Amino acid sequence: MISDSDLVKFLDNLLKIDEIEDESENGVQVDATTEVEKVAFAVDVRQDIVKRAIEEDVDLLFVHHGLIWGDGIGPLTGKDYEIVRDLVQNETGLYGAHLPLDVHSEVGNNVELAKIIGAEPREPFMEYKDTKIARMAFFKEEKTVGEIARMIEEKLDTESYTLKDERKVKKIGILTGKGGQALKSAKENGAELFITGERTYMTYNEAIDLNMPLIFAGHYATEILGVKKVMELVENEFGYETYFLPGKTTI
Amino acid sequence: MISDSDLVKFLDNLLKIDEIEDESENGVQVDATTEVEKVAFAVDVRQDIVKRAIEEDVDLLFVHHGLIWGDGIGPLTGKDYEIVRDLVQNETGLYGAHLPLDVHSEVGNNVELAKIIGAEPREPFMEYKDTKIARMAFFKEEKTVGEIARMIEEKLDTESYTLKDERKVKKIGILTGKGGQALKSAKENGAELFITGERTYMTYNEAIDLNMPLIFAGHYATEILGVKKVMELVENEFGYETYFLPGKTTI
Amino acid sequence: MISDSDLVKFLDNLLKIDEIEDESENGVQVDATTEVEKVAFAVDVRQDIVKRAIEEDVDLLFVHHGLIWGDGIGPLTGKDYEIVRDLVQNETGLYGAHLPLDVHSEVGNNVELAKIIGAEPREPFMEYKDTKIARMAFFKEEKTVGEIARMIEEKLDTESYTLKDERKVKKIGILTGKGGQALKSAKENGAELFITGERTYMTYNEAIDLNMPLIFAGHYATEILGVKKVMELVENEFGYETYFLPGKTTI
Amino acid sequence: MISDSDLVKFLDNLLKIDEIEDESENGVQVDATTEVEKVAFAVDVRQDIVKRAIEEDVDLLFVHHGLIWGDGIGPLTGKDYEIVRDLVQNETGLYGAHLPLDVHSEVGNNVELAKIIGAEPREPFMEYKDTKIARMAFFKEEKTVGEIARMIEEKLDTESYTLKDERKVKKIGILTGKGGQALKSAKENGAELFITGERTYMTYNEAIDLNMPLIFAGHYATEILGVKKVMELVENEFGYETYFLPGKTTI
Amino acid sequence: MISDSDLVKFLDNLLKIDEIEDESENGVQVDATTEVEKVAFAVDVRQDIVKRAIEEDVDLLFVHHGLIWGDGIGPLTGKDYEIVRDLVQNETGLYGAHLPLDVHSEVGNNVELAKIIGAEPREPFMEYKDTKIARMAFFKEEKTVGEIARMIEEKLDTESYTLKDERKVKKIGILTGKGGQALKSAKENGAELFITGERTYMTYNEAIDLNMPLIFAGHYATEILGVKKVMELVENEFGYETYFLPGKTTI
Amino acid sequence: MISDSDLVKFLDNLLKIDEIEDESENGVQVDATTEVEKVAFAVDVRQDIVKRAIEEDVDLLFVHHGLIWGDGIGPLTGKDYEIVRDLVQNETGLYGAHLPLDVHSEVGNNVELAKIIGAEPREPFMEYKDTKIARMAFFKEEKTVGEIARMIEEKLDTESYTLKDERKVKKIGILTGKGGQALKSAKENGAELFITGERTYMTYNEAIDLNMPLIFAGHYATEILGVKKVMELVENEFGYETYFLPGKTTI
Repeated sequence: MISDSDLVKFLDNLLKIDEIEDESENGVQVDATTEVEKVAFAVDVRQDIVKRAIEEDVDLLFVHHGLIWGDGIGPLTGKDYEIVRDLVQNETGLYGAHLPLDVHSEVGNNVELAKIIGAEPREPFMEYKDTKIARMAFFKEEKTVGEIARMIEEKLDTESYTLKDERKVKKIGILTGKGGQALKSAKENGAELFITGERTYMTYNEAIDLNMPLIFAGHYATEILGVKKVMELVENEFGYETYFLPGKTTI
Repeated sequence: MISDSDLVKFLDNLLKIDEIEDESENGVQVDATTEVEKVAFAVDVRQDIVKRAIEEDVDLLFVHHGLIWGDGIGPLTGKDYEIVRDLVQNETGLYGAHLPLDVHSEVGNNVELAKIIGAEPREPFMEYKDTKIARMAFFKEEKTVGEIARMIEEKLDTESYTLKDERKVKKIGILTGKGGQALKSAKENGAELFITGERTYMTYNEAIDLNMPLIFAGHYATEILGVKKVMELVENEFGYETYFLPGKTTI
Repeated sequence: MISDSDLVKFLDNLLKIDEIEDESENGVQVDATTEVEKVAFAVDVRQDIVKRAIEEDVDLLFVHHGLIWGDGIGPLTGKDYEIVRDLVQNETGLYGAHLPLDVHSEVGNNVELAKIIGAEPREPFMEYKDTKIARMAFFKEEKTVGEIARMIEEKLDTESYTLKDERKVKKIGILTGKGGQALKSAKENGAELFITGERTYMTYNEAIDLNMPLIFAGHYATEILGVKKVMELVENEFGYETYFLPGKTTI
Repeated sequence: MISDSDLVKFLDNLLKIDEIEDESENGVQVDATTEVEKVAFAVDVRQDIVKRAIEEDVDLLFVHHGLIWGDGIGPLTGKDYEIVRDLVQNETGLYGAHLPLDVHSEVGNNVELAKIIGAEPREPFMEYKDTKIARMAFFKEEKTVGEIARMIEEKLDTESYTLKDERKVKKIGILTGKGGQALKSAKENGAELFITGERTYMTYNEAIDLNMPLIFAGHYATEILGVKKVMELVENEFGYETYFLPGKTTI
Repeated sequence: MISDSDLVKFLDNLLKIDEIEDESENGVQVDATTEVEKVAFAVDVRQDIVKRAIEEDVDLLFVHHGLIWGDGIGPLTGKDYEIVRDLVQNETGLYGAHLPLDVHSEVGNNVELAKIIGAEPREPFMEYKDTKIARMAFFKEEKTVGEIARMIEEKLDTESYTLKDERKVKKIGILTGKGGQALKSAKENGAELFITGERTYMTYNEAIDLNMPLIFAGHYATEILGVKKVMELVENEFGYETYFLPGKTTI
Repeated sequence: MISDSDLVKFLDNLLKIDEIEDESENGVQVDATTEVEKVAFAVDVRQDIVKRAIEEDVDLLFVHHGLIWGDGIGPLTGKDYEIVRDLVQNETGLYGAHLPLDVHSEVGNNVELAKIIGAEPREPFMEYKDTKIARMAFFKEEKTVGEIARMIEEKLDTESYTLKDERKVKKIGILTGKGGQALKSAKENGAELFITGERTYMTYNEAIDLNMPLIFAGHYATEILGVKKVMELVENEFGYETYFLPGKTTI
């Protein structure tokens, strides 16, 4: 079974799946009766992604946003039925890693975003259920918000949406994906700029009121980094055939 | 899809699936991409039952105790994975009806138990989330508890476990399955005997203290009646091939 | 006091403030010791908006997103202190109307959005705390999603973000602001297109999986309509000097 | 007062009454104005048991299943009134010890059941409110499930109900009384056989699906062991006259 | 049994025990095996009161503040044990009526307080769990707060504690016992004076801020009226020997 | 800003504002744009107190019972509006310290009450949300309850209300303000007398039943001590002009 494979043990251990409390049911979400040879990686478990994973005939699909949240999955009808059916019929397992992938100190989305723009990741901040889910980072030399935004756009192939482009900053707070809830905590902990993925109206208004520079870098764009980093580790560790399945949106 | 079939609409409507609040997720629990021709009926969704349903190549498996309870089903691993996998791979849907099958005024487990021993079903009693889940019934002439127990044993092919065999009674309270929680309410509403399925220690002790005659008739034995009645209605209404899949336990 | 003024009685009555349960504390949020002569209207209570209201020396500021949510406002420090201080020192009252303004059947954001694009508002849908907060609407003749998006962009001076531009539709579901939670319910109730304000990643992915046309029309852009309609009614009813205070974002 | 007696201090201390969180209100449940000379021990506080305790004129009745559960006892009417009245009029105190008696590492029901069939008690398992309430045990040499069941029947004078009689096992998980909730945890912790008291339909079905050998040894039968062990300790420690009041049921 | 007596049926019916939700467990709280001939009435179930009830050898003790509140009574030790023991040994039942006695439209504490000072009881106000627990009353002619306080002192043999003695009032809000929580609602509903029993610091400060006249008339003093009225009805209806057991405090 | 002043840092640190969980929102409750030169101290934030603080033109008003409790303050209308308006318009900040002031081991209300009557403060008792909120104290030589009451009356200029004047005691339990909930715990921890501020009917009845001497010394009277002690420390530390604003009630 996929759930007994060395790969799953490696992932559970790497990402501390059992230690981090989350709304997502992390780890194996749908098992499979198969040996691992091919593994696909994606941000989301959308139906079109599943179909491409099956076209490649992979044995496990690793995603950041999985299928099972909260207290479980309801009746297997509609879209949920179709995803489970496709996975089961093709003997493809599903593995989800949500917060454990955001917060990881080596391969997490937050630290990878810091690194890609040349900032040094530092201490995590903003506690959620005993895990600090956001991350501070530092530039050695001051940069303007606009410069940082252009680096992000280029490196992540995304459009950004910014506030206070001319402000010069060194210390930045990061929470990838939909992370606006960390804006205030970032400011209180001394960040001069807050970067998150998904643009929300409330966060934008709050940043105006707090006079806090802000970059919305895209939900999808900021969450492929950790996924790709885990893919790289899996390739190196096991030598499996791997696929990154893009599902780009500009949101 | 099974979920759009006339059979499912018939069952949802017959059993008032949308009206009765329950711990069980009633209705279609696992969908299937198929037309209905063969339907199996069973009390439980145990793996051995699923395997027999698949041997018969049925399109829908109707059960009293389904797979999805409370807020949903967790990760599809272990036993849950295997059941879902077997159903999906064989394009067999799963339909669950728990309280709606116990309480139905025409085909429910409670009223069917009353009828099979020659008692006339009367008003329901003991409210649970706005549904009265137990049922009063009357004998035209007094019978001893022992006589009633022997009828049940014979009709249901079960062993019974009784208290106060010699007591003569006319008015009885019934809650099939694991129904001990209705004992006290039965007494308060005037029942002279309480019949339930599963024997529990606490109910037994409570009956001794309340000086209340009691028959434990078996959990499984008391819950095949409604399942078989629904099977009969489906045969008559649609002419499908039907199978009753026994999963007898003496508990 | 502002809270005893005819204007406040008119607004409370028009918007059924006391009848609609909401996370927002609707109605007068900060009182003032003044007679009403000038009234400002805005979507948000951001500090820059408050400053402009004070520059115009208005007696009441009416907003869609107010200052007091949930169980109350915490210590009056930081940004909250500054907003309250500015209001109090200038004897400007604050009035908030969140859900009551979204759902109103005559002047609400949902119905106003329908009207502005030439669709006829119909029944409300998707219950939240006993109020149906979204709204169905119909076009007499089929239009493509792209055509509708272009109308919205032009009428609301907004950028839209769409899915499935070529699909032809007549029945549309609308929930202004951040309304993605109504997507699924819109589809289940027969809508062929769903329009909401704020673009969210999850809603976008869900629409792809549900194969459901979608227009994100902007959070701010979709919520000025009801505010302006109330402004118009207040002008007609009372003859006060009124100001609309724009706070445009493209989110 | 009984509650100030050396006996009660001894029991509270032995069973760690203050440390173990439980649904039962453990310790003195009904006080008495008397010196201790005679003590009765029973599994349940049924009315017939209380009457026999009073016939023997005992000063304290020690039971496993007491009178006060959850947040307290409601109005003292009906059966509860009669039990309290009989105790009070005869100056007989009542002492309850539920989980503290099941889990005790020296005299608990679980370890006593292991010992009586020649197995060595090991570590506790399955946490409930910070207490591990079940117990692992080992046989030095493999035995079949059937052999173990026959030992239990003989030693406890009970009927057992088993699954997979021929399976050979060494490591067993035990939870006396109504303990089916520990079946899955027993398997996950490596037990090859699970023994509990009360037979339940759901546990039986679950064991079939998990392919897990099972012995239901009787609720009452598995819970007299700890009670009798405490009786023995009290006799040795204090030299009081003691009585075991049987209340056998075969459930 | 006392719980089956005509007296208890009369009281349950008179006071609508089953209809009014309360923190108190109203109705028979401790049963007794006796016929009713003598009944005592008191405000509280203090031990000294119970002893006096027993000296008079009464069969039922009716109180406003009983023994069982919330979810039940905990272990019967200490003071609770002694009260239950004394009641049971003397075959004296206990009947509690808390909110049902405060709010009754004919014999309740609120309306009796209004009547004794010559005011006409009117509509109830301030909802608590679906019951309006306070009561408005009117004087035909204006009186000063001081005049009203002196009437209360004289009629109830209590000391009062007042605010704004000179204010002239006609409409008064009343909640006997510890009723300060109704002060604000009284004012909002148009009362010009609020009368309650127990003086509390917070209510006093609130009244100063609300500029609202106030009379604290004593907790005990304001709650004997309903008790005595029920006593009178019981005497007239049944001709039993009755006793009022005073337990005066000046609080 | 007042919230950034040295005075606020001193108070937050002294009173461990961040460490003690409370129903009150302790610390700065309403900020102000000013430098500190004059500070007023009072027990309550009543409107008349605020007016006197403003007459003295103070920069900060320190109170024991503040304006913001529980989850926040609702709409700023009525009395709450007026208090906030008056504070804001006069640039007067508000600082609240509830439990932190009661429990402080050097300047708290409990220990100050002990000292003023010549008793030595000892260990705290009765845990509430991880803080022990009451305090034991000892007299070197036995005193009667009456003697202690007379000392309190004289030192605090209050009337006291006592139970069991003649009893001689050495160990006393203290909880100032409305502290009756600590009576039972005081007795269980060995206190021979319990002293609290506000007299309540339930505490009085409970003390009678527990045969426990009791002094009610007045809510207001027992809570000025800590306030005045903090005032003294602030004078010594900063040399500011300070005012104590009395708001005496005899409750």
